Amino acid sequence: MLKVGVVGYGYWGPNLVRNFIESGVSRVQAVSDLNPSRLELVKMRYPTVEVTAQHEDLFREPAIDAIAIATPVATHFDLAMAALKAGKHVLIEKPMADTSERCLRLIDEAARRKKVLMVDHTFPYTGAVRKIRDLIQAGELGDIYYYDSLRINLGLFQHDVSVIWDLAVHDLSIIDFLFRDKPVAVSATGISHVKSQPENVAYLALYFDCNTIAHINVNWLAPVKLRTTLIGGSKKMIVYDDLEATEKVKVYDKGVSIETNPDNIYQMRVGYRAGDMWAPQIDGTESLRTLVRHFVDCIDTGEVPITSGECGCRIVRIMEAATESMAKRGEQVRLN
Amino acid sequence: MLKVGVVGYGYWGPNLVRNFIESGVSRVQAVSDLNPSRLELVKMRYPTVEVTAQHEDLFREPAIDAIAIATPVATHFDLAMAALKAGKHVLIEKPMADTSERCLRLIDEAARRKKVLMVDHTFPYTGAVRKIRDLIQAGELGDIYYYDSLRINLGLFQHDVSVIWDLAVHDLSIIDFLFRDKPVAVSATGISHVKSQPENVAYLALYFDCNTIAHINVNWLAPVKLRTTLIGGSKKMIVYDDLEATEKVKVYDKGVSIETNPDNIYQMRVGYRAGDMWAPQIDGTESLRTLVRHFVDCIDTGEVPITSGECGCRIVRIMEAATESMAKRGEQVRLN
Amino acid sequence: MLKVGVVGYGYWGPNLVRNFIESGVSRVQAVSDLNPSRLELVKMRYPTVEVTAQHEDLFREPAIDAIAIATPVATHFDLAMAALKAGKHVLIEKPMADTSERCLRLIDEAARRKKVLMVDHTFPYTGAVRKIRDLIQAGELGDIYYYDSLRINLGLFQHDVSVIWDLAVHDLSIIDFLFRDKPVAVSATGISHVKSQPENVAYLALYFDCNTIAHINVNWLAPVKLRTTLIGGSKKMIVYDDLEATEKVKVYDKGVSIETNPDNIYQMRVGYRAGDMWAPQIDGTESLRTLVRHFVDCIDTGEVPITSGECGCRIVRIMEAATESMAKRGEQVRLN
Amino acid sequence: MLKVGVVGYGYWGPNLVRNFIESGVSRVQAVSDLNPSRLELVKMRYPTVEVTAQHEDLFREPAIDAIAIATPVATHFDLAMAALKAGKHVLIEKPMADTSERCLRLIDEAARRKKVLMVDHTFPYTGAVRKIRDLIQAGELGDIYYYDSLRINLGLFQHDVSVIWDLAVHDLSIIDFLFRDKPVAVSATGISHVKSQPENVAYLALYFDCNTIAHINVNWLAPVKLRTTLIGGSKKMIVYDDLEATEKVKVYDKGVSIETNPDNIYQMRVGYRAGDMWAPQIDGTESLRTLVRHFVDCIDTGEVPITSGECGCRIVRIMEAATESMAKRGEQVRLN
Repeated sequence: MLKVGVVGYGYWGPNLVRNFIESGVSRVQAVSDLNPSRLELVKMRYPTVEVTAQHEDLFREPAIDAIAIATPVATHFDLAMAALKAGKHVLIEKPMADTSERCLRLIDEAARRKKVLMVDHTFPYTGAVRKIRDLIQAGELGDIYYYDSLRINLGLFQHDVSVIWDLAVHDLSIIDFLFRDKPVAVSATGISHVKSQPENVAYLALYFDCNTIAHINVNWLAPVKLRTTLIGGSKKMIVYDDLEATEKVKVYDKGVSIETNPDNIYQMRVGYRAGDMWAPQIDGTESLRTLVRHFVDCIDTGEVPITSGECGCRIVRIMEAATESMAKRGEQVRLN
Repeated sequence: MLKVGVVGYGYWGPNLVRNFIESGVSRVQAVSDLNPSRLELVKMRYPTVEVTAQHEDLFREPAIDAIAIATPVATHFDLAMAALKAGKHVLIEKPMADTSERCLRLIDEAARRKKVLMVDHTFPYTGAVRKIRDLIQAGELGDIYYYDSLRINLGLFQHDVSVIWDLAVHDLSIIDFLFRDKPVAVSATGISHVKSQPENVAYLALYFDCNTIAHINVNWLAPVKLRTTLIGGSKKMIVYDDLEATEKVKVYDKGVSIETNPDNIYQMRVGYRAGDMWAPQIDGTESLRTLVRHFVDCIDTGEVPITSGECGCRIVRIMEAATESMAKRGEQVRLN
Repeated sequence: MLKVGVVGYGYWGPNLVRNFIESGVSRVQAVSDLNPSRLELVKMRYPTVEVTAQHEDLFREPAIDAIAIATPVATHFDLAMAALKAGKHVLIEKPMADTSERCLRLIDEAARRKKVLMVDHTFPYTGAVRKIRDLIQAGELGDIYYYDSLRINLGLFQHDVSVIWDLAVHDLSIIDFLFRDKPVAVSATGISHVKSQPENVAYLALYFDCNTIAHINVNWLAPVKLRTTLIGGSKKMIVYDDLEATEKVKVYDKGVSIETNPDNIYQMRVGYRAGDMWAPQIDGTESLRTLVRHFVDCIDTGEVPITSGECGCRIVRIMEAATESMAKRGEQVRLN
Repeated sequence: MLKVGVVGYGYWGPNLVRNFIESGVSRVQAVSDLNPSRLELVKMRYPTVEVTAQHEDLFREPAIDAIAIATPVATHFDLAMAALKAGKHVLIEKPMADTSERCLRLIDEAARRKKVLMVDHTFPYTGAVRKIRDLIQAGELGDIYYYDSLRINLGLFQHDVSVIWDLAVHDLSIIDFLFRDKPVAVSATGISHVKSQPENVAYLALYFDCNTIAHINVNWLAPVKLRTTLIGGSKKMIVYDDLEATEKVKVYDKGVSIETNPDNIYQMRVGYRAGDMWAPQIDGTESLRTLVRHFVDCIDTGEVPITSGECGCRIVRIMEAATESMAKRGEQVRLN
């Protein structure tokens, strides 16, 4: 039974605590938070879990095997490094850190100490995204033409990072999980509507060496919450709506076939294929439950996590480049 | 009773013919099309309308006061110029022409001959877009933060112009109609999934001198038809869905108020305001009916059309710049 | 080329005229209507079609082969009987007549004169309903458990018949088309919110000898338009939404399996089967186009129409019985 | 701080326990359940809460002030009666009991012992239903014409009561809360698709002395989950969809005005009024949280609960009558 210490009991921490408690393969030894009222809430809910305002207490505690970090991104590196140095396995809430250089240092430290370092990107652990990957790997979609995502809502504004680091990070983890090809360049544009604050609306385009494009539209100032992703392939196309209760993934047997008249290039004939739609049943297990079990498994078996430090670093690298591109008015930035 | 000749009876021509016939203030004298089977269809539907394969017949006919052009964009300039020179008023299907330079020449010719030159951008004549403009002009939305549009479907691929000229053109006409400020620069990126054909997926960003951004996502290779536009303002926000049967425009009394703690800039406090939603009743008159009557009115009164040649030219200029930007991998292009 | 006379150019007549004109196998010789402004509209649209205020003119005209009747239901019997006696084939807008006894008399007259008598129930000619019937006949749904329909909107109130005769009639024609078993009893309840007018809200239940129930909810005073039909089977279930643009029919691989613990009947175990959803592509041809061609085919070949006089009569008989049941506060009425 | 014992930790019990723990005004002393694995789950989640297989332990415990009962309906009466006799306040999961006679006996016992007896009907404690009641009481809807509810899903089949007792019970509690007038008669029809089991599909109509009708469509064998309620009034109409994330209540400024031509009653003129739609912001507090606080308040202040024993009894009485009506093939049953 893995014993876990959780740093941060704000927005996401409660989900981590609940899942570590109910996983059946782990338990929560202690929780730390700077805010006393949050610690009171922990006590009310779980009277037997220890609480402390000092996260160092968790690192020092020999009974604790692993640390889960659910604090603002600017603090991730210091906390994770300290936890690794204290000999703990580490799970970090997304994004992994504020720079890719710091991600690399965490990866090194974990490797040197043979500790599991995992990033809490939840989407690769959802039934929907796993089903989409299965379909892609089985060749159902054919060549991938595009990934196009709309991920908007009202809030939660963050003062230190743009909306890319809060919302686009989800799409980047999905793209990293779904596609074998990795993006080679990124361009991004955005706007801030709050003086001297980071962008609250942003648009990213990711370029690949193959004939694929990815586009991500993220917005903290939208009147409605939307989570709509289209994935176009040469054979089939997918609409993935994470807000749908059950039919989250719809597979459309639609596409085009182009035939150019050899005698007259102006008489291109496009054939439209409009077939059935199919919504496969999706495993509804809470993604964090699957993620928590995978974390415990990786600790037990030495398996590399799906959302490893390397994965987390690739995603941070793209967001760094996107931030650079926004500063340069949308100019393309190469990724290594 | 205005007598109209319609050039082109393909996809859009039938709508023009029907509306000119049923407007009560105009009638259709003749229709030309290169395809005999289309002319047969005209005869079956309207046995008293003359048909011809020669569009010149329409220009020569003294009984005809105005020419409506519903042919591929590459032919617009020659047809419109010939019609103006023949002394006819001219209504051109969008986009006005394939270059802004040609648009300017048409504007000059029409001015010299004192003929009405109007472009058939239909959206400014819809009840929904007019309602949105009323709300903006009444200050209901406050400062405009963004215009964000998703306009995607399967087809209809065109061999000579990219999806921008087919779909984004609608958003450009809406933006031109809604906002007093005009965009000062554009960047665009796109991809073609059909060898040696123009882009079938494209993303445009329009920049303004004020703190507004516009973004347009157009796609001919989408499995579903979507028409979703968000307009964010400092006071209220709009979701406009043209596919909704009745509640096309929803006004959200939502937004944020930002308060920075003077002692600690890291403790920015964002207040979220989530109030009621309101869907005003929308005039359901067919937009083309309103457009046709406006065309006849402008001819009668000398009024400048809402979608004048100048308006059509501004829109073509943006699409030219967007095409240039796509060729330069998303680099911003200034709009004089 | 069948020559048709159309009686009535109000709400539905224009659709009939347009489809007879564009069918390719028929043409419209003349239209009659009591309202001169409706006849003017015909002249504007179709200058070569004859118009008259006297429907007798159509019956007398030897060039006319068939009469289509699109007038209020109270007039159907007299008009159809006169047309049959004049030797014309007859297509009657639904419902066939105001009493089943009158339906029988029309059936007799048509039989005696060897004329085609068909009722314009459009739903059996839609791609969606045909697809559903194919699925049922192929055994995909298993045993039919229920048909449950919600068909509501604002208007159009009629002064002489209840909402059952206007809206439930569609479901009755779908049920007649889909299921081999015919209902054996009906109960209905309803309410009028307008003094001395027929019911504008009504609920019908149809009983069958097999373990099937059908329920129809119709309402002229609803704030939204809804057309949702559920069909439950022992193997699969369907949701049919006629307002969906493309995915009108969704087939759910869902159901239950019941297993009773032999030792303890209180420990019934219900197994829930939740599999994929599948939306077959639906033929989008306008139903009235298919219906009009079927009418012409039946005249040419002697084939019995899908929506024959007998079918129309069965539907009127159910509505008569439902009206009787409403008067008796929901008491079941047997259908001979 | 009220101390609560919870009997039953199956489907609903966990929600009660969580809300009593987090209410801030109560705590959970002990939980009983017959199933040891459920008690283990309690221990894992809340190590300090006592657990027992004997519900009598809870009644005997002097530290416990109130008992919450979340067990199958057949056991409600005995458990509630024992709890009252032990001097506890009682909260019973809906429905209150299996017969109205037993409800009356519980009401008597609670009155005699001056204990609070409350039924856990949650809908009157939701922001949506409260907003609707405010609108009705403010006269916004005018006279109420109808309440029409569709409440369907797959499962959860119960072996001892029909779908009416599981799903229609929610609508009955909403109707009881919204309307001052109480129904005077009920008719119901239903069908069972599982041999020797209660009805899994049912339709209820409630009649009032005023010109209102209520209709409830409930189904355990539906492929989709729907929760759609329409409330029609003479001035405005509401669509209430509990599955909507935020816009649960939509108010339509729509209706009809009827004007009969005094010269010709066949020329009834119906005016259709189609105005704006408005979705008021809804308080999103979890209803059970509000209910739990109300229960504690009633104990503290002696206030009569909104969902009192009398309210619970009226609802059981209607379900008894509906069950009787189903047995009589839909015959109306009067509600004294």
